[in-house]
Amino acid sequence: MSEALRIGVAGLGTVGSSVLRILHDKADMLTRQCGKEIKVTAVSARSRSRDRGVDLSGLKWFDDPVELAASDEIDVFVELIGGDEGAAKVAVETALQAGHHVVTANKALLAKHGVALAEIAESKGVLLNFEAAVAGGIPVIKAMRESLTGNSVSRVYGIMNGTCNYILTRMGEEGISFEDCLKDAQRLGYAEADPTFDVEGNDTAHKLSLLTSLAFGTQIAADDIDIEGISNISLADIRAADDLGYRIKLLGVALKTETGIEQRVHPTMVPTSSVIAQVHGVTNAVAIETDLLGELLLSGPGAGGDATASAVLGDLADIAKSRPGFQHGPVFGSPAKTLETYKRADIREHDGGFFIRLTVHDRTGAFAAIASRMAENGISLESIVQRNRDASEEKGVKTVILVTHATTETAVQKALEAILNDDHLVDKPQMIRIERGTGA
Amino acid sequence: MSEALRIGVAGLGTVGSSVLRILHDKADMLTRQCGKEIKVTAVSARSRSRDRGVDLSGLKWFDDPVELAASDEIDVFVELIGGDEGAAKVAVETALQAGHHVVTANKALLAKHGVALAEIAESKGVLLNFEAAVAGGIPVIKAMRESLTGNSVSRVYGIMNGTCNYILTRMGEEGISFEDCLKDAQRLGYAEADPTFDVEGNDTAHKLSLLTSLAFGTQIAADDIDIEGISNISLADIRAADDLGYRIKLLGVALKTETGIEQRVHPTMVPTSSVIAQVHGVTNAVAIETDLLGELLLSGPGAGGDATASAVLGDLADIAKSRPGFQHGPVFGSPAKTLETYKRADIREHDGGFFIRLTVHDRTGAFAAIASRMAENGISLESIVQRNRDASEEKGVKTVILVTHATTETAVQKALEAILNDDHLVDKPQMIRIERGTGA
Repeated sequence: MSEALRIGVAGLGTVGSSVLRILHDKADMLTRQCGKEIKVTAVSARSRSRDRGVDLSGLKWFDDPVELAASDEIDVFVELIGGDEGAAKVAVETALQAGHHVVTANKALLAKHGVALAEIAESKGVLLNFEAAVAGGIPVIKAMRESLTGNSVSRVYGIMNGTCNYILTRMGEEGISFEDCLKDAQRLGYAEADPTFDVEGNDTAHKLSLLTSLAFGTQIAADDIDIEGISNISLADIRAADDLGYRIKLLGVALKTETGIEQRVHPTMVPTSSVIAQVHGVTNAVAIETDLLGELLLSGPGAGGDATASAVLGDLADIAKSRPGFQHGPVFGSPAKTLETYKRADIREHDGGFFIRLTVHDRTGAFAAIASRMAENGISLESIVQRNRDASEEKGVKTVILVTHATTETAVQKALEAILNDDHLVDKPQMIRIERGTGA
Repeated sequence: MSEALRIGVAGLGTVGSSVLRILHDKADMLTRQCGKEIKVTAVSARSRSRDRGVDLSGLKWFDDPVELAASDEIDVFVELIGGDEGAAKVAVETALQAGHHVVTANKALLAKHGVALAEIAESKGVLLNFEAAVAGGIPVIKAMRESLTGNSVSRVYGIMNGTCNYILTRMGEEGISFEDCLKDAQRLGYAEADPTFDVEGNDTAHKLSLLTSLAFGTQIAADDIDIEGISNISLADIRAADDLGYRIKLLGVALKTETGIEQRVHPTMVPTSSVIAQVHGVTNAVAIETDLLGELLLSGPGAGGDATASAVLGDLADIAKSRPGFQHGPVFGSPAKTLETYKRADIREHDGGFFIRLTVHDRTGAFAAIASRMAENGISLESIVQRNRDASEEKGVKTVILVTHATTETAVQKALEAILNDDHLVDKPQMIRIERGTGA
């Protein structure tokens, strides 16, 4: 039996506590599978006294995670602190510079500094593993980094935020408003007290930026993502989508086009009969389209202490099975120094239709005017549904749902501006993209 | 740059030709990702003259794959010959004994000799990679072997045969009989001239036996699988399932129970709203339930030259990124010598309901007799649908569909025997298991 792999864990929240508990409870199984013991030797957290349900006796305590990261009593630094600067960043840099492997769940840090950190890791010959940073326990990083070697990816998309998917699922299944679903999500611990980062799509964007780099061999460009959250999705949208055979999901989508890369996060209509439409509640799913494989889809729990800890364990196991001096695969699939410069696609030509919901004054000629504006902008319509609003709402108002054939976002924006100027609308128009071929 | 990894490929059918073509066309990408060139140096196949659309000039030709396996001009032996004995077995053994890594797509060989081959590989310190053997290009072996380290698996199940899923999908979507779908599948190349191995579930059973070993850390027991194919599934079953909110899929299922392991392959009713019900055509899907992660589902192309070659490439990349003398992870997750003896579960207590379709003489008392027989065997019914047969069929005959609550297969078999003896049935009764919680 080889010597134990010595682990230092910084950050003992839900995930960190799970990691410690599992490493203790499953020590025999892990030793058999990895060929050596994985042994926590030191920890660091804000509060030493908080009860985490795990025994910390016998572990060296560091008040400062950076000191832990530099310690020569560890082989691997597990960073579960969070945040894209400050202690997390300095600690990870310190650990890598000290020749320690790093396992992290910190998507914000990697979205901002991932390539620079990968360069340090690769120059030092250590691993920087981050399976837990994207889609919780789902092994999408390993699949993209290792299993899809040699594949050219054309698109990657997915449901990567459990809070949003929980809210959209409950709105659809129970007819509860966004606001009420959000309150429940907060009560159940699925959403933060300040939910902005989740519901406005920023969390999904961070994760997407990492998948984009892995998919296309480019540098990470988390700032170049068109982001739209779910707070504007109404029950009327969900019901209209349902009538038309769609569900609404918050997708992160990254595409390779002829002129560059397109990254976007937005509510998306997906066919009810698709696999991704059946991904409910806090479950996540990621689909990857490649030239060789076609479409690969992975789904599973996107959050939770044990599920995320499972991803950390997988990363630790990969390190345990390796040897000092072993030539590791590159952090982002290709060596950090060879990652291509990110190039934004010239025009974000959304390749798919649009769902448009208009609340219209019920006046003669309104509908004809709307139809003309669409036609003027070269938009052809796949379906048109016109109906009275709910009885509870004001008279003289109609809801018009338009589903377009594939067109550009620019054309739709222009048409909607013209319609707004025509003064037929009661409310702001709603526009939701229909992503083509999300059939998986 | 390190020295090239030298590959010998035995078997140049669809997959082998794809592997050669991709290694040629994507040489630069693979070199960048793997840190060294992956270079085919030698091949072996039955016919030297057949046009495979790839240039074999410059490659050493071996008439005998075993000679190729033993050659000191290769580092990795890629076995794409097939068959559980003969040349494939001898060649793989020879390659491992010679200290060569092996990549194989041969599920039949591994189902029969996997543990013995793993022992050789582990004693020689080389890799035996077999991602392509199960579910084509879907990285389920890597997920189970590496990502799920430390997870205790409770159940693994999946759609692992594209031929069967193609047939069942078309029967459901187009109302075409099993026989006609099978003919189309043969015409399109999705089914062999002799389809028995696929449609009777044997292919699924081979794949399942490998997943069972990975899931539960046990020796492979391909002979201990209860197998039932899809040739008895009628359009009447598909329609009745649809009415009740189910689809019929051929699933391989392996469970850990208190007394041992249960492995079965059979047509299964899954809820129409589940993810797995949306896995259509030749697509495969595998779900793995664990204590830490919950349920992980992977779906994608289960067959095809490029998709399967993609799995071979991933296996080759793992070898290319390793170093001679590197301590490899065990072939089946735990070292072959530590795999537990397979223990069959005492009673195969199918934990779920049953769908039963009876064709009954429309006589007074028939239905009461059937209901009594079910009750006598302690079976409670969730739903009962009684209807007239199609107008085209004989008069005086009714179809009775029963859906039971969770019960045992023994109880159902006893009840059906009694009903048969009562002489109320026109045809053999049909019984299809409903797998609980296939919600992924």
